[in-house]
Amino acid sequence: MATNTIKIAYIGGGSQGWARRLMYDLALEPRLSGTIALYDINLNAAKTNQRIGTLISNHPDATGKWTYEAIPTIEEALKDADFVIISILPGTFADMAMDVHFPEKYGIYQSVGDTVGPGGIRRAVRSIPMFMEIGEQIKLHCPDAWVINYTNPMSVCTRTLYKAFPQIKAIGCCHEVFETQHLLANMAEEMLGVTVENRKDIKVSVTGINHFTWINEASYQNIDLFPLYARFAEKYVHTGFEKEQGKWEESVFHSSNRVKFDLFRKYRLIAAAGDRHLAEFMPPVYLKNPQTVNDWKFHLTTVDFRVKDQQRKIAENEEVFTDDTKIVLEPSGEEGVEILLALLGIEDLVTNVNFPNKGQIQNLPNEAIVETNALIRKNSVQPVRTNDIPLDVANMVNRHILNQEAVIQAVLTKDKNLARNAFVNDPLIAAISYEDAVSLFEEMDVWQQDQ
Amino acid sequence: MATNTIKIAYIGGGSQGWARRLMYDLALEPRLSGTIALYDINLNAAKTNQRIGTLISNHPDATGKWTYEAIPTIEEALKDADFVIISILPGTFADMAMDVHFPEKYGIYQSVGDTVGPGGIRRAVRSIPMFMEIGEQIKLHCPDAWVINYTNPMSVCTRTLYKAFPQIKAIGCCHEVFETQHLLANMAEEMLGVTVENRKDIKVSVTGINHFTWINEASYQNIDLFPLYARFAEKYVHTGFEKEQGKWEESVFHSSNRVKFDLFRKYRLIAAAGDRHLAEFMPPVYLKNPQTVNDWKFHLTTVDFRVKDQQRKIAENEEVFTDDTKIVLEPSGEEGVEILLALLGIEDLVTNVNFPNKGQIQNLPNEAIVETNALIRKNSVQPVRTNDIPLDVANMVNRHILNQEAVIQAVLTKDKNLARNAFVNDPLIAAISYEDAVSLFEEMDVWQQDQ
Amino acid sequence: MATNTIKIAYIGGGSQGWARRLMYDLALEPRLSGTIALYDINLNAAKTNQRIGTLISNHPDATGKWTYEAIPTIEEALKDADFVIISILPGTFADMAMDVHFPEKYGIYQSVGDTVGPGGIRRAVRSIPMFMEIGEQIKLHCPDAWVINYTNPMSVCTRTLYKAFPQIKAIGCCHEVFETQHLLANMAEEMLGVTVENRKDIKVSVTGINHFTWINEASYQNIDLFPLYARFAEKYVHTGFEKEQGKWEESVFHSSNRVKFDLFRKYRLIAAAGDRHLAEFMPPVYLKNPQTVNDWKFHLTTVDFRVKDQQRKIAENEEVFTDDTKIVLEPSGEEGVEILLALLGIEDLVTNVNFPNKGQIQNLPNEAIVETNALIRKNSVQPVRTNDIPLDVANMVNRHILNQEAVIQAVLTKDKNLARNAFVNDPLIAAISYEDAVSLFEEMDVWQQDQ
Amino acid sequence: MATNTIKIAYIGGGSQGWARRLMYDLALEPRLSGTIALYDINLNAAKTNQRIGTLISNHPDATGKWTYEAIPTIEEALKDADFVIISILPGTFADMAMDVHFPEKYGIYQSVGDTVGPGGIRRAVRSIPMFMEIGEQIKLHCPDAWVINYTNPMSVCTRTLYKAFPQIKAIGCCHEVFETQHLLANMAEEMLGVTVENRKDIKVSVTGINHFTWINEASYQNIDLFPLYARFAEKYVHTGFEKEQGKWEESVFHSSNRVKFDLFRKYRLIAAAGDRHLAEFMPPVYLKNPQTVNDWKFHLTTVDFRVKDQQRKIAENEEVFTDDTKIVLEPSGEEGVEILLALLGIEDLVTNVNFPNKGQIQNLPNEAIVETNALIRKNSVQPVRTNDIPLDVANMVNRHILNQEAVIQAVLTKDKNLARNAFVNDPLIAAISYEDAVSLFEEMDVWQQDQ
Repeated sequence: MATNTIKIAYIGGGSQGWARRLMYDLALEPRLSGTIALYDINLNAAKTNQRIGTLISNHPDATGKWTYEAIPTIEEALKDADFVIISILPGTFADMAMDVHFPEKYGIYQSVGDTVGPGGIRRAVRSIPMFMEIGEQIKLHCPDAWVINYTNPMSVCTRTLYKAFPQIKAIGCCHEVFETQHLLANMAEEMLGVTVENRKDIKVSVTGINHFTWINEASYQNIDLFPLYARFAEKYVHTGFEKEQGKWEESVFHSSNRVKFDLFRKYRLIAAAGDRHLAEFMPPVYLKNPQTVNDWKFHLTTVDFRVKDQQRKIAENEEVFTDDTKIVLEPSGEEGVEILLALLGIEDLVTNVNFPNKGQIQNLPNEAIVETNALIRKNSVQPVRTNDIPLDVANMVNRHILNQEAVIQAVLTKDKNLARNAFVNDPLIAAISYEDAVSLFEEMDVWQQDQ
Repeated sequence: MATNTIKIAYIGGGSQGWARRLMYDLALEPRLSGTIALYDINLNAAKTNQRIGTLISNHPDATGKWTYEAIPTIEEALKDADFVIISILPGTFADMAMDVHFPEKYGIYQSVGDTVGPGGIRRAVRSIPMFMEIGEQIKLHCPDAWVINYTNPMSVCTRTLYKAFPQIKAIGCCHEVFETQHLLANMAEEMLGVTVENRKDIKVSVTGINHFTWINEASYQNIDLFPLYARFAEKYVHTGFEKEQGKWEESVFHSSNRVKFDLFRKYRLIAAAGDRHLAEFMPPVYLKNPQTVNDWKFHLTTVDFRVKDQQRKIAENEEVFTDDTKIVLEPSGEEGVEILLALLGIEDLVTNVNFPNKGQIQNLPNEAIVETNALIRKNSVQPVRTNDIPLDVANMVNRHILNQEAVIQAVLTKDKNLARNAFVNDPLIAAISYEDAVSLFEEMDVWQQDQ
Repeated sequence: MATNTIKIAYIGGGSQGWARRLMYDLALEPRLSGTIALYDINLNAAKTNQRIGTLISNHPDATGKWTYEAIPTIEEALKDADFVIISILPGTFADMAMDVHFPEKYGIYQSVGDTVGPGGIRRAVRSIPMFMEIGEQIKLHCPDAWVINYTNPMSVCTRTLYKAFPQIKAIGCCHEVFETQHLLANMAEEMLGVTVENRKDIKVSVTGINHFTWINEASYQNIDLFPLYARFAEKYVHTGFEKEQGKWEESVFHSSNRVKFDLFRKYRLIAAAGDRHLAEFMPPVYLKNPQTVNDWKFHLTTVDFRVKDQQRKIAENEEVFTDDTKIVLEPSGEEGVEILLALLGIEDLVTNVNFPNKGQIQNLPNEAIVETNALIRKNSVQPVRTNDIPLDVANMVNRHILNQEAVIQAVLTKDKNLARNAFVNDPLIAAISYEDAVSLFEEMDVWQQDQ
Repeated sequence: MATNTIKIAYIGGGSQGWARRLMYDLALEPRLSGTIALYDINLNAAKTNQRIGTLISNHPDATGKWTYEAIPTIEEALKDADFVIISILPGTFADMAMDVHFPEKYGIYQSVGDTVGPGGIRRAVRSIPMFMEIGEQIKLHCPDAWVINYTNPMSVCTRTLYKAFPQIKAIGCCHEVFETQHLLANMAEEMLGVTVENRKDIKVSVTGINHFTWINEASYQNIDLFPLYARFAEKYVHTGFEKEQGKWEESVFHSSNRVKFDLFRKYRLIAAAGDRHLAEFMPPVYLKNPQTVNDWKFHLTTVDFRVKDQQRKIAENEEVFTDDTKIVLEPSGEEGVEILLALLGIEDLVTNVNFPNKGQIQNLPNEAIVETNALIRKNSVQPVRTNDIPLDVANMVNRHILNQEAVIQAVLTKDKNLARNAFVNDPLIAAISYEDAVSLFEEMDVWQQDQ
């Protein structure tokens, strides 16, 4: 495949976070160029992205040159694409408010509400038909394309693509593990007195599922980081640890890693996602109420915050349109472009991806989307096998996997009863009474399918 | 194998319920005879059983003649046995009181406390070393014997035998499914106006694990019983159903089947164990407090009751010793003797047994002890494959399987932390706070291994 | 389901052997009645069957009454059928002559030529599109029907039905194991001096694939038949054994069981199919040339013989049409009607069937059609799990399974190269040079798909 | 782990080829140093290696400094080793002559005779007890060591280590794939006009078993090498291809790659071992007789040649002992030292290794030793999952896997009959008559276990 006539179909991107990061990284990579077909159900959002992308590509420091085009139909956007990137927001802010905040009525607090828990399940029910549609369109218009999904609930959305088109070449990507590598790097610096150049120098073996991901081996050079982390977690479990102490209070996305440390003490693996994600997979230990959340030093992400964040991004766009010198090209820290380079054969990559389980984790169900390392090479993603997950962690992970499988099957076979059974079995929901759980299921209209 | 010189080693039996039933059934089966070697850690209990067994075998109506011998060592009892029957009480009544009642301090009520839940897990921790020992003795003294286990926690104890001696020929047997067949027979009589001669005329396909067992196919002659049961469960879910209405109040072992009906409405499979067992595998829906239990029309089995029950049995023995005309030979309804007949090649049997999963239920973990039908023939137990369990039920069953695997691994590798993680993950325990669960674990001394 | 308004669609049956047997058995079973829709690509053959079936059903001794109707289209025949029986002859006698005899040019002799070997593979290539079509029609017209296939190559044809319609409820049935039970009964009579009333009193555990089927447990009452068979095979391996010595020479379908005895001495399992079938799965040990076949005391079934056999059946029909007193109702020894009774819930049956492997034989590939015992009950076929096949036998069986999987995949994906690779890997064909094998593949036009 | 006090136990090495190469590579690697404990059943051979190793380590260009010590007992050699390297010659030259040449009496020619075929199986029978012993010693003396096996039959020897000590951390290493990468590099240079700097720039995905290894993905930068190889194989299948044409005649280890090209045309995967190895796994297509071997342009490796080769090495040693300026430090092209570096955490490595199958190839048997890529990092070998092997190749590979499993089981359970059944099922042996195969088995004394 030529590396200068690449076609990328970008599905979604209206909310601009992920799209913008990719644009920067592409502009900074001289070995690739081509066209980005931008499709969003909101065509204006795609047009905005076209304007921004064009400005970025025209930036004097940009070494990678791309043509951005807003495309009105998904069919045309996908047509003969080499790569498809999916980063949609399934639903409105009103939907999201229902997902995240309504359950508070029953005492269920969610720090994100997009993966599991009542919000995650409701969002899954809504996303599955969308991803069935996208998968079927890919089958028709670009069956050989590599598909990178960034949308949550990651496991559910990616699994649905495979349900729609079993031969699809799709992976799910997420940066949560990178953050944990940064934490381990900071730990190594503090405890070993070394300087870690690059988070990638922290070698990790990844297992589990997206946002409930675990590291079962970690090393820096010839040093096993597990004994170190044991001491580190012990030391900081009560105060938390941050590179700059107290910074967690500045952003809803930050935390002090107390949840991660506590999970290590209990389960002896390094949980590898943000505390706000991890907490949602557990019974309400960390999410009992807003005070507990605060005590554990992480945040509930409100939808109000998300609305404001969106407005802020729009304002930033306006600024840039007025004055394009505001654009400063900087690498995003994401790996999308490295993955493209690897899939094109330009540079091998070993990183964590979400991929159907075909033996990479033998004690989790086959075909479920799991997150492990993979070796990515030209036109090839090969998961790296990791050891069996310890029984206690496997049990918690498996409960979510089977719940997610149940939700997918429920939507595909129109079986509301099955969806409800999965819902009441979620650990956050199982903490309220069965009767309340069923009421919540109905009041939130989790099913959404009869409309 | 000759059928008139059979040696059965009976391990346990001190509490006499199961032993006595077997004695009756053996006395009523003319095709078999031989010797029963009775071993109990309480030699006097074994001697009492010897006296009773001898009286029964000498009864004028007895057509099966057996020699009963109390044996002081397990080695001698097992030596060259053709069959081994294990029915021990792991621990004292004081242990049992701790298992069952102590958790009430934290609001956890258990209707039996011998399978899962805090009591079941504590009992498991105690039983595993005993079954390792028994398994190793069988390996040494009668490796070709067929072993029938009646002891709870059934899955854990049977699994441990296979850990001790992987080539063991062991099955676990339990009568709970039979009761459900009786219920279905009663239903058929009521709803179809037929007379069901024999519970075995109700054909059932069994899946799941012991005491959390499910029927996924049921028929009577050419009638599918599932649509019938749907109507039946709907009709009686609020009032309960019994052959003689109100009888559930007479015995702690009885119930009105309301839990079973409710589980059907939710999960669309026929739960096939007594309500008091089923309730313990679920979050505290049915076991919220004593009042709920009463509302659902089943009972908490107190240890006081068990103590009295034991005293009653002892008194009955005394009566019999004084006046052996009190002995009335009647079939027990158990299948032990039918299983012997089948394993000896005299009469084929299809019945439900607990056996390592080697594909009979493809969506549960391999090697876990599962309960399905099996075809029993001469020297052969072949599990009958059953369809995959629906995802919602599979998720609940699997949680207990992995928890039990974790407890076994914890004891065998002396990993208290793992035992604790399994404990807090039990659905009854997960309903209290993590902190309380850990306190309960310590206060109950679930671990018991450091003494 | 009512048992007196059953609709059976009979697909094929033009050659009349199997159809006639079923008609007799149905006439002798008073508990069932209904309609048989006869469909054959040769409508006249179906009409002949209609005439014969009607005569049989009208016979004064017939207690089971059935209406036979020749139906011109498969759609109409299948419409709302409760059962589908498939017994087609895939191809003409000319095809069969090519299958069986052409390979003799290269020194390959086949005793049947319909399962494996050059003839079996060529027949498979021809049958697969037919069974795809039948499977798709069943999906459309009677998706809930139970389907019984009698057509060879059994494993390939049944597997193809599942490829066409994964939810199909299909089994493959074959009487070869019954003959082996008769042999074991004869053995028991000779060696134990008993009288075996019924071949079903010989209990066998079945494993392997159709026509390369093995018994790994066998008993009569409480007697293990394996040590007996070891002595028996030793005694008769050179002379052969028949109930009436020398009878094997009378019919091409008979043998003296020498091949079976020889296989036992080598592999220590009881091969459970006719010698003429077994020989074809092995390298040319027993099929080196016609003389070897004669030495091993079985036969090559010529197509000439089959043509004459067909003419004989037609003549018999004519006789019957002229004089219906020629009809004598006698049970056929087949189990088709027992299977109907079991599937209708009237009487449980444990027998050997061909069914997708879902764990019943853990060391053979999943989903391949394997032959094991199954428990058949109302609307339910549940395979009985059997122990792993010993490695030496597993290796031979697996080679044929993967070869058959390859042929099916080759036809479905139009991959002639794959078909050729499977062909040259067949044990009978691997005995000639690679170059000759490829020439044979072309000269026989094994592929047949380009026409 | 410190990288300057490493202890390597080297088991075997008497024949000096592999040992010498490792010594060179260690001398050229400045980041590692420590002690090599040399153990060989011939202590003098170990002492010779000690002398050579010491000379090499003392070479002025040597940047890696190692102490070499001949150790008289395996226990002492293994004691607390960090790494164990096993490179033994199982048996004498007389044994090898029997393995390789005796079967010629029956028309079976072997080009190596150490992996499969009559020689490979006989060598396996001999090696299994040795590797059981080594595995048990490792369990006792250095259970945490990483073990690298270079001994053939690779799969059998490595599998036996896991049988002896299931927790062993052992891999098998072989350079045959590297040669195929060189071939692909040469191809790329010829067909693309590029210069390939390093064989590692040829990215390959590896599958299958040792010496019957296959490449199912190959690329150079962004170029898929499969279409290229298709043209290349077509072009050179008749003449062969070598970088220097005709060179294959100079050494018995060389070939013209005609077998590889022919296998590609038939099976559409790139066979990835020397032609002389590949030929032995197939029926006698390439090994019909010495003339065929010559036509296919590879060699039969005679034992005479091996004897002379050994003498030549001894003479070279003498030269070196007399005049140590003869030592020229050059990298060997082997990867042993890179593997040490990776396992020590110094530099990640992705390379092909032999490792128990735990899902890396889903359609080959679990636990069998398969060869795939693995990601090697600090104290970690994680196999990289590869796609299912196509059915035609899977069938051939699987036949050898099950045969090897059978041989191992035969030796461990002392079941000569099973060994014989595996023997007659080998493709080279299946080409002669069954009777001849059994005679060969006896005359070669394949079993060797009764002495």
